[in-house]
Amino acid sequence: MEATALSFFIAAVTAAGFGIAIAAFGCGIAQGIGLKAAVEGIARNPEASGKITTTMLIGLAMIESLAIYALVVALILIFAHPQAGAIAALLG
Amino acid sequence: MEATALSFFIAAVTAAGFGIAIAAFGCGIAQGIGLKAAVEGIARNPEASGKITTTMLIGLAMIESLAIYALVVALILIFAHPQAGAIAALLG
Amino acid sequence: MEATALSFFIAAVTAAGFGIAIAAFGCGIAQGIGLKAAVEGIARNPEASGKITTTMLIGLAMIESLAIYALVVALILIFAHPQAGAIAALLG
Amino acid sequence: MEATALSFFIAAVTAAGFGIAIAAFGCGIAQGIGLKAAVEGIARNPEASGKITTTMLIGLAMIESLAIYALVVALILIFAHPQAGAIAALLG
Amino acid sequence: MEATALSFFIAAVTAAGFGIAIAAFGCGIAQGIGLKAAVEGIARNPEASGKITTTMLIGLAMIESLAIYALVVALILIFAHPQAGAIAALLG
Amino acid sequence: MEATALSFFIAAVTAAGFGIAIAAFGCGIAQGIGLKAAVEGIARNPEASGKITTTMLIGLAMIESLAIYALVVALILIFAHPQAGAIAALLG
Amino acid sequence: MEATALSFFIAAVTAAGFGIAIAAFGCGIAQGIGLKAAVEGIARNPEASGKITTTMLIGLAMIESLAIYALVVALILIFAHPQAGAIAALLG
Amino acid sequence: MEATALSFFIAAVTAAGFGIAIAAFGCGIAQGIGLKAAVEGIARNPEASGKITTTMLIGLAMIESLAIYALVVALILIFAHPQAGAIAALLG
Amino acid sequence: MEATALSFFIAAVTAAGFGIAIAAFGCGIAQGIGLKAAVEGIARNPEASGKITTTMLIGLAMIESLAIYALVVALILIFAHPQAGAIAALLG
Amino acid sequence: MEATALSFFIAAVTAAGFGIAIAAFGCGIAQGIGLKAAVEGIARNPEASGKITTTMLIGLAMIESLAIYALVVALILIFAHPQAGAIAALLG
Amino acid sequence: MEATALSFFIAAVTAAGFGIAIAAFGCGIAQGIGLKAAVEGIARNPEASGKITTTMLIGLAMIESLAIYALVVALILIFAHPQAGAIAALLG
Amino acid sequence: MEATALSFFIAAVTAAGFGIAIAAFGCGIAQGIGLKAAVEGIARNPEASGKITTTMLIGLAMIESLAIYALVVALILIFAHPQAGAIAALLG
Amino acid sequence: MEATALSFFIAAVTAAGFGIAIAAFGCGIAQGIGLKAAVEGIARNPEASGKITTTMLIGLAMIESLAIYALVVALILIFAHPQAGAIAALLG
Amino acid sequence: MEATALSFFIAAVTAAGFGIAIAAFGCGIAQGIGLKAAVEGIARNPEASGKITTTMLIGLAMIESLAIYALVVALILIFAHPQAGAIAALLG
Repeated sequence: MEATALSFFIAAVTAAGFGIAIAAFGCGIAQGIGLKAAVEGIARNPEASGKITTTMLIGLAMIESLAIYALVVALILIFAHPQAGAIAALLG
Repeated sequence: MEATALSFFIAAVTAAGFGIAIAAFGCGIAQGIGLKAAVEGIARNPEASGKITTTMLIGLAMIESLAIYALVVALILIFAHPQAGAIAALLG
Repeated sequence: MEATALSFFIAAVTAAGFGIAIAAFGCGIAQGIGLKAAVEGIARNPEASGKITTTMLIGLAMIESLAIYALVVALILIFAHPQAGAIAALLG
Repeated sequence: MEATALSFFIAAVTAAGFGIAIAAFGCGIAQGIGLKAAVEGIARNPEASGKITTTMLIGLAMIESLAIYALVVALILIFAHPQAGAIAALLG
Repeated sequence: MEATALSFFIAAVTAAGFGIAIAAFGCGIAQGIGLKAAVEGIARNPEASGKITTTMLIGLAMIESLAIYALVVALILIFAHPQAGAIAALLG
Repeated sequence: MEATALSFFIAAVTAAGFGIAIAAFGCGIAQGIGLKAAVEGIARNPEASGKITTTMLIGLAMIESLAIYALVVALILIFAHPQAGAIAALLG
Repeated sequence: MEATALSFFIAAVTAAGFGIAIAAFGCGIAQGIGLKAAVEGIARNPEASGKITTTMLIGLAMIESLAIYALVVALILIFAHPQAGAIAALLG
Repeated sequence: MEATALSFFIAAVTAAGFGIAIAAFGCGIAQGIGLKAAVEGIARNPEASGKITTTMLIGLAMIESLAIYALVVALILIFAHPQAGAIAALLG
Repeated sequence: MEATALSFFIAAVTAAGFGIAIAAFGCGIAQGIGLKAAVEGIARNPEASGKITTTMLIGLAMIESLAIYALVVALILIFAHPQAGAIAALLG
Repeated sequence: MEATALSFFIAAVTAAGFGIAIAAFGCGIAQGIGLKAAVEGIARNPEASGKITTTMLIGLAMIESLAIYALVVALILIFAHPQAGAIAALLG
Repeated sequence: MEATALSFFIAAVTAAGFGIAIAAFGCGIAQGIGLKAAVEGIARNPEASGKITTTMLIGLAMIESLAIYALVVALILIFAHPQAGAIAALLG
Repeated sequence: MEATALSFFIAAVTAAGFGIAIAAFGCGIAQGIGLKAAVEGIARNPEASGKITTTMLIGLAMIESLAIYALVVALILIFAHPQAGAIAALLG
Repeated sequence: MEATALSFFIAAVTAAGFGIAIAAFGCGIAQGIGLKAAVEGIARNPEASGKITTTMLIGLAMIESLAIYALVVALILIFAHPQAGAIAALLG
Repeated sequence: MEATALSFFIAAVTAAGFGIAIAAFGCGIAQGIGLKAAVEGIARNPEASGKITTTMLIGLAMIESLAIYALVVALILIFAHPQAGAIAALLG
């Protein structure tokens, strides 16, 4: 039974490690796109930099929230899966 | 039976971890595209920043809703699958 | 028989978790493209913002409907597959 | 025999869940492209918004029809496959 | 023999479900491209909207025909494969 | 022998279902590209709409012919493969 | 021996069905690109439509020839492979 | 021995069918690119249509030669592989 | 049991090594996009370089945070997985 | 031993058939890009058509040489591999 | 036990070798994008070369840091994994 | 031993055939890009055709050298691998 | 034990050979992008060629450093893995 | 033992053949991009052709160095792997 219990943790670490990486990849690109527009906007129209920065931060925060969702799921998989305790008990 | 019961949880954590990651990837890019347009718009026409920000927030919220769908499904897979209780009971 | 019954639920959670994620990815990008155009349009022509927002919402709603289709199928796979009851009975 | 009967339903839920997701992905992007053009068009030429919206709706409806085809096939696979009854009878 | 007969239906539902999905993906994008051009054209030149809409509909119909081909093949695979009757007889 | 005979039909339905789908995907995109150019051309130069529509139809017909090739091969695989009769006879 | 003989026909139908599909995909896109340029050219310069159509047809014919090569190979694989008769004889 | 001899022909038909398809895909796209430039060139400068068509034909012929190479290799694999006779003799 | 315990560490090092690499890939590209815009902005409007650099640093920091999330998960997988101690005890 | 000897020829025909196809794909695209530039150049500046054609032919010849390398390797694999004779002797 | 112990080192070298390569790929592209913008900026506005170079170096350093993260993880996997000593002891 | 000896030659012909094909693909595209620029340059500025052709040839030669590296490695794998003789001796 | 010891070296050469190749791919593209910008910049503004070349060299050096990291890891895998000696001892 | 010893050389030739091919692909594209810019630059500004050619050669040399790294690793794998002698001795 221990071998199978380990395979649960193997799946969990794989999903956690790759999941956060994929989310960081996509959300990183997204923040880069938003950042690019904000920086270009400030360069063209420095007077609007306050509004631009505010809007950028709102957007970056919403994108960050998506990565946080993935991070939360990853941490749940590592630390707080509801069956994790029962399965760990199988290790002996 | 326990080994097979574990394989159900393995599939669930894989689907949850990668599912939310894929959704965060796509919706993140989408929000980045929307954010880019909003920031560029404010830089060009700061007077319209109120309308732009409002429209952007509506759009970001709808994109966020898509990621939330995936998050909900992921959490259902981890915490609330209708057969999860019966399957966990097989662990012993 | 229980092992095979579990493999049905494994397939269902995999299809549900990845299906909604793929749909959220694509429809999110689509909504981002529509949002981008709407925000740029308002920045260029704020007087038309009413018409633009209305059209954008119609479009976002239709794209959302596509993601809802996938969500419905995912939820059917988890909660309402016609053979799910019979198969769950095999567990016990 | 029951194990094999289940593998039929496994294939059906996989094809249904991923099929509708792939179709929603592509048709969503397509509707996003159409929506983008409509919104840009209204921003440039608000007087033509009636014609633009009408044309957009015709196009979105045709794209929606493609996703509906996939949805119909997915639902047939879940609820109405001609051999599903005979195969389900093998379970019991 | 029944197990193998089922594997035929498994292949058929897989090909049907994914086939119509792939076709809907591609033809959807194609219709989106055509729709985009039509909507942009009407926005630029509303007087030509009659000719534009007519041409667009011809084009969308031809693209739709491609998706219909795939739908027809998918339905043949589900309902009307010439050997399906003989194979279904193996189940019983 | 029957099991192997079925695997022939399995391969045939897979190749038919995916083949027509791939061809519909590519040819659909191609027709969408051609349609886009035609619609844009009519919007810019409505006087040339007769010549444009004629040329477009020639092109769409040639692209359609490519999809027809794939459809013909798919139907041959389902209904008219030269060895299909001999193989179906193996089913018993 | 019959099982192996069938696996030859399985490979042949797979290669034929997917081969013509891949070729139709690529050549379709290619014809779409050529068609796009021709239609745009006629819209810009209707006087040159004769030369443009002639050149387009030469090009489309050459692209069509590539798809024909793949079609010919596909049909050879189905109907005229030099060893097909000997292998079919193994079916009994 | 016959089973293995067949696997040689299986590999040959797979390589031939997919090889010519891949080559047709790439060379088709290439000819489409060249055709596009030629047609656009004639539309802009009809006086140079002779030189343009000549150059286009040289280029298309060279691209066609690449597809011919793949076709020749495919036909060699089907009809003229140096060991094909010896291997066919193993079929009995 | 030791062999299985090792397979847990194998999964952990794989997820850690590839996870941080994928995150570094995506976030690197994202920072490159942001950096590009900042440098171009300074070249066009050197007076705004202060605001541009500040905004760029905020954005780069948020993108960096995404890579840090993945790094933290990777390090947790290597050094601090809650079951790692129990599993390592199986080695000895 | 004969079965293994055949697997050598299987690998050789696979590498030959796909290798020349991949090379034809890439070099075809490359020649298409070069051809496009040449045709566009002649359309813009017909007086330079001699120099342009000469340069284009040099370039196409160098690209062709790359495909020839792959063709030569493919033919070596089919007809002139140094161990082919020894391996063919194992067949019979 | 030694065989399994080796499989741990195999996974570690694979993750290290490919991980640093993937990170170098992405961060290299990112630095290339940033470098491109800096060089173009200096060419357009040589007076701002000081500010541009400073900003570029900050950005390149942050991108470099991401690659360093992956390098550190790779080196940890090779030289400093916390269980590496215990596992290496299994070899002897 | 002979079976394994053959598997060495199988790997060598696979690596040689696909390796030169991949290199020809990439270097072909690269030469196509360089050729495109040279031809466009001559069309715009025929007086500089000498310098342009010279530079193009230097560049094409360097790209060709990369393909030659791959060709050399492919030929080494076929004709001159240091252990090939010893391994071939195992055949007989 | 020797067979397993070899599998360690197999993994090491695979990771080394592909790792440096992937890194060279990405960093090469990156240097090409930077080089392109530098050369274009010098062509537009030859007076700034000193500053441009200096900046380009700094950037190329940083990109080169990333490839060097991968090269170092590859060489460590071949020549200096800490367990390589112990594992090589298993061969003899 | 000989079979396993051969599998080491199989991995080495695979890594060498594909590694140099992948590196040649990427570095070739990179040199093509650099070459394109240099040729375009000379066409626009022939007076700067000296500086342009010099810069291009520096860049091409650095890109070439990356391919050389991969070539060196490939040759080490074929001719100079530190354990190659010991492993070859296992062949007998």
